Formats: sequence, structure tokens, C-alpha cells
Amino acid sequence: MQLVGVDLGATHIAAGVVNREGKLLSRVSKPTLPERPWLSVVQDIRACVGEAVEAAGAILREIEAVGIGVPGNVDDGSGIVFACSNLHWQRVPLRQALSEGLPMPIHLANDANCAALAESIAGVSAHCDSSVFLTLGTGVGGGLVIHGRIFTGLGGGAGEFGHMVLYPEGLKCNCGRRGCMERYCSATALVQRARETCQAFPETDMLRRVDGNPENLDAKIVLECVRAGDPMALRVFSAFTRDLGLAIDNIIGALSPDMIVLGGGLSGAGELLLRAVRDAIPRCEMNVPRILPRIELARLGNEAGIIGAALLDRQSIAPVSRACAKEDRYE
Amino acid sequence: MQLVGVDLGATHIAAGVVNREGKLLSRVSKPTLPERPWLSVVQDIRACVGEAVEAAGAILREIEAVGIGVPGNVDDGSGIVFACSNLHWQRVPLRQALSEGLPMPIHLANDANCAALAESIAGVSAHCDSSVFLTLGTGVGGGLVIHGRIFTGLGGGAGEFGHMVLYPEGLKCNCGRRGCMERYCSATALVQRARETCQAFPETDMLRRVDGNPENLDAKIVLECVRAGDPMALRVFSAFTRDLGLAIDNIIGALSPDMIVLGGGLSGAGELLLRAVRDAIPRCEMNVPRILPRIELARLGNEAGIIGAALLDRQSIAPVSRACAKEDRYE
Repeated sequence: MQLVGVDLGATHIAAGVVNREGKLLSRVSKPTLPERPWLSVVQDIRACVGEAVEAAGAILREIEAVGIGVPGNVDDGSGIVFACSNLHWQRVPLRQALSEGLPMPIHLANDANCAALAESIAGVSAHCDSSVFLTLGTGVGGGLVIHGRIFTGLGGGAGEFGHMVLYPEGLKCNCGRRGCMERYCSATALVQRARETCQAFPETDMLRRVDGNPENLDAKIVLECVRAGDPMALRVFSAFTRDLGLAIDNIIGALSPDMIVLGGGLSGAGELLLRAVRDAIPRCEMNVPRILPRIELARLGNEAGIIGAALLDRQSIAPVSRACAKEDRYE
Repeated sequence: MQLVGVDLGATHIAAGVVNREGKLLSRVSKPTLPERPWLSVVQDIRACVGEAVEAAGAILREIEAVGIGVPGNVDDGSGIVFACSNLHWQRVPLRQALSEGLPMPIHLANDANCAALAESIAGVSAHCDSSVFLTLGTGVGGGLVIHGRIFTGLGGGAGEFGHMVLYPEGLKCNCGRRGCMERYCSATALVQRARETCQAFPETDMLRRVDGNPENLDAKIVLECVRAGDPMALRVFSAFTRDLGLAIDNIIGALSPDMIVLGGGLSGAGELLLRAVRDAIPRCEMNVPRILPRIELARLGNEAGIIGAALLDRQSIAPVSRACAKEDRYE
């Protein structure tokens, strides 16, 4: 029996057939075109599922379950996408809309949670009881696997490490707080730091690589300059990894997972990133030696989203809890 | 069938018979005298179990299980107390030592985890799928209940919120880091802030209450002055709760539990603390309204340790994972 996973992104809908061990057997994709009415996107999701099944030489009615990873806040219990800003979706009854033509169970989850699950079954954190997955990209996202299952928390909010406050008096974040991790540890933040450094110290390879215009810098160029040993790029990278180490140290303190998995675009920096982050974890001087989790790079790359979505059927996802909830603010 | 819980503290060993719903049926205690050889302490734990059973009019061989809450790092899998600084214990094979004379299953857990479990079964967080328990006392401890079970994490380290860094350039902590939550949000920190304020602004009721000697201040006096409306005490309390709100906001971001439970000595401040902390949670200005967990006071008080230890038998505790561990520092 086989599963289908769908990675619903802001630019592409990607789908694939996956076996129960997490091996991807086919892969198809279509542009998302998020400005369309959501029902048109749903039609293309359904079409992608069909094409992925065909590409794997499988038969739709033998597919055991379909899982959808969504870049937003979803509730598998009700099958509703509460909010997905990249797609401009609010309260979309995705499961109900998809179920026409797809009679098998349909599971929904946040995309970072899907990636976390994929790595914990078929990737680097396989056989870990618990793991924290961090996506270091435009923003910082996260997923938690605890006792082998995704933990979504109240309102699906668990793993929102990007808005953990590192510097209470720090940079203003669009969430209204100051000093959020995302403002220091995302690819966007790395590039921002590099631009500021270029302005203060124009004698840097980074600036030469973009013909003197810091606006043309991107994370790839910054990392290439780090590798080439440019002192200003090294300085930027060192401040960046110090803050990432600080954030990861806080996550370790709170959760002490078996493994921290680094994914997202910046994880392409590979061993360079890994070594720097490991070095940046503050040493604990208590009399009891601390047991630290392994910190590793994600292994499944872009396929993690599809694989994890497919594997949602391997676990019973607890519906997002809203029972004890307070909306937005305490009275 | 009945259970026995033991709360092994630095000053007292307390034990009681508890039914499976978490009701305490008897309670006995003896001084711990931690300077003794650990085997003598173990003898008194065994004696306490016997006396608690007798006090409840029960029979030892009908007791289903015994649970021990230890103020340190323990592994229920191996039955070993790795480290307990208050008792000066290192690698004590507690279960093996206790099993002589106690033929029923014996479970071990950290005391904050026991309190978290007790509240989640028989206290304020009953019926929550997930909860974070914070003990605000001399230090700051914590326990996590996730999917209804204690989550201990790698090496038993989960829930160490006291060493979450709030201010990277902040006050030096004895763990070697700077700006740990414990240095801002413990009873010790509250009193320290009050002492500093008394020195800078001697015209305060706090100082009058201790005949001019700030060294005689304690948390109780500070809170009484807050209640009485002393402006300097209010100022101290406001800075304290702002930082506690910041810390809790980070915990919400990471875990989004159904409930945050405040326990420990400072929770005696009751509604005063609760209202101030709820007010101190920063408002999130993202377009998606955040679902906030309830923040409540612990209900079981000093009995939480005994009740939670007894209830350990109601869940299968995953043995502390050490599989993927790195000791103390990355290479």
C-alpha cells in the first residue's frame, strides 16, 4: 500500500507517491498561482495527486491516504486551514473540498511539521524519540516531534521558534515584539547584517561581488565569501551563528530533544554552518554535566515536505487543541 | 487498588497513599538529613512508605506501585538518580536499593515533573492534553506534560526553563551563562531586585518593614508591600512580572501548551501574580490572531509532589533517552 504527500507552497504544488518507509516513488508539480480563488488551487492539488499516482505506476483507489502540508496554521481535526498568509487563505475547509474525488483519508499539517516528521521517520532524525526541526530560510519556522509524534500544541502554535525573543531591547519584528529569533537567525537576517557591514566597511569581497550595490547581496553570496575567508563576511557569519547558538541553547533548555535538525535554505551552508553552530552553544558550568542533543543537517531537502505529508497517516495526529484557549490576549 | 507517592526533598521525606484519581489518603514525613549516607535516607524512604500505608488503613502488599519524586536528574529506565545536588547524590541506584522490601513496581521522576503530572491529572490542568508547570521558588524549575505524558527529554533535561536566556548581556548565572530566567523570575531574584531598589530609594515601606536592613527582606514581605501599594515595591514587582511574561511568551512560542501552571513558593502571591503575568504577555500583532494558553495557579500545593509521584504508575514513562547524546560540549 502506498501514500500520497502534497507540499502546498506559495509558488508550487508538489506531490508524490511515498511508501510507508518514506521513500519517494514519484514527483510532479504545478505552479500554485495563489492569487486564484482557492477552489482552483484545490482542483490543481487533486490533479497533482492523480498525476503523481500515475507517474508511480500506481492506482488511485489503492492509495491508502493523502496528506497535505500547508505553509500556515491548520487543524487536522476539523480539516480546516485557519490561516495561510502566503496563499491569502483564511478558514479554508481544505479537506472537505478535496474529499470529492479523493475518497481515502486526507490529513493536514503545517509544512514545517511535515518536514520534521519526514526527517524523524526517513531522514537524519530517524529513530529519535524527539526532535526539533528548524527551517532557516526567509523566516524561521519549526516543527516538534515528541514521543515519535508531531506535537502541534494549542491552536497549532508549537514550534514557533522564529518569534522567541533573543534580545528584549533588540530589532523590531513584524509580530510587534522586539528581538525575535527570526530577526537574527533567518537568511533574511544574515543578508541584512551583511548589508549593514558593507556600508560600514566597504572594503569587503561581499561588496565587490555585487558591483558595489549591497541591495544585490543574497545569502548564497554571503556564504561564498565566508568560505573564501573574507574577514567582513566571517564577522557577519560569526555574529549570526552566535545568535543561532543562543537560540538553540534556549530550545535545548526547554525541550532537550534527542536531536536538533537544521533545514531550510541556509542549511545548504552545510558543515560550515553546523560546525559554527555547535561551537556557539554556550558551555554549561553547573556541577552536573549537561547531556546535549546532536545538531545535524536535514537530509531530505525539498522532498521532506512531500514525504512528511504522506507519512502523516503513520501517526494519529491529535486535533489541534482549542479547549482551554484564550484568543489573542488575556483579560 | 492504591498507590504510594514519595516526595524526596532536601529537608523532608514526605510520603502518602493516593488513589488512582489522585486523591491523597494519608501523609507522613521524616527529616531527610541529607548529610547521611544515602542508604540511610533510603531506609527512611522505605519506613515512610510503610507508615503512610498504615496511616491510610491499607496493606502494603495491596499497594500497586510506588513512585519517588527526586529534586534532581533521574532516569526511570535504569532506576538511577544521576545527580541530585541538594542531597549530594551522584549515580545512586535508588530503585535497586528500594526494591528490597518493596516488591511492587517503583517509578522515579524529577520532582517538578511529578508536580506537573499531579496538576494535569488531579489539579488545575486536569483534562489538558499538554501543560507546562513552572516552579517559581529559590530557583525556577519546570515540568512538561505532552499528549498527557511527562516529557523528560534527552538526559532528563526538558523543562529547564530556569536557564533559558532572557538577556544575553544580563546578570551572570551560576550556570556560566548570562541573563538566565532564574536570575530574573525566581523568588531569589524578586528579593534581590527589592534589595537593590531599597538601596537606591530608601523611602520605601519595604525598608521600614525590616528596620532598615535590606538583608532581612524576603519574598513574603515584598509581596505584602506590593499589596499595600508601596510605590517602590510595585516598581520591583512590575519589572519582575514583565520578565516573567517575557519568559512565558517564549515558552508559549516554543510549545503552545494548553495551559501554563504557576507553582512554587511565589505562586502563593495568587491573583496578584496571575493578573500581572497575564498583562505582561506581549500582544502579537501578526495578521493571524494567536491562540494563547490559559495561565493558572497550581492547586495541589505541597501535596503535588506526593500525588504526582504516586501517579507515575498511570503512565508509562519513556526511559530517559541517551541514544543520540553528546556529553556537555560539541567537538
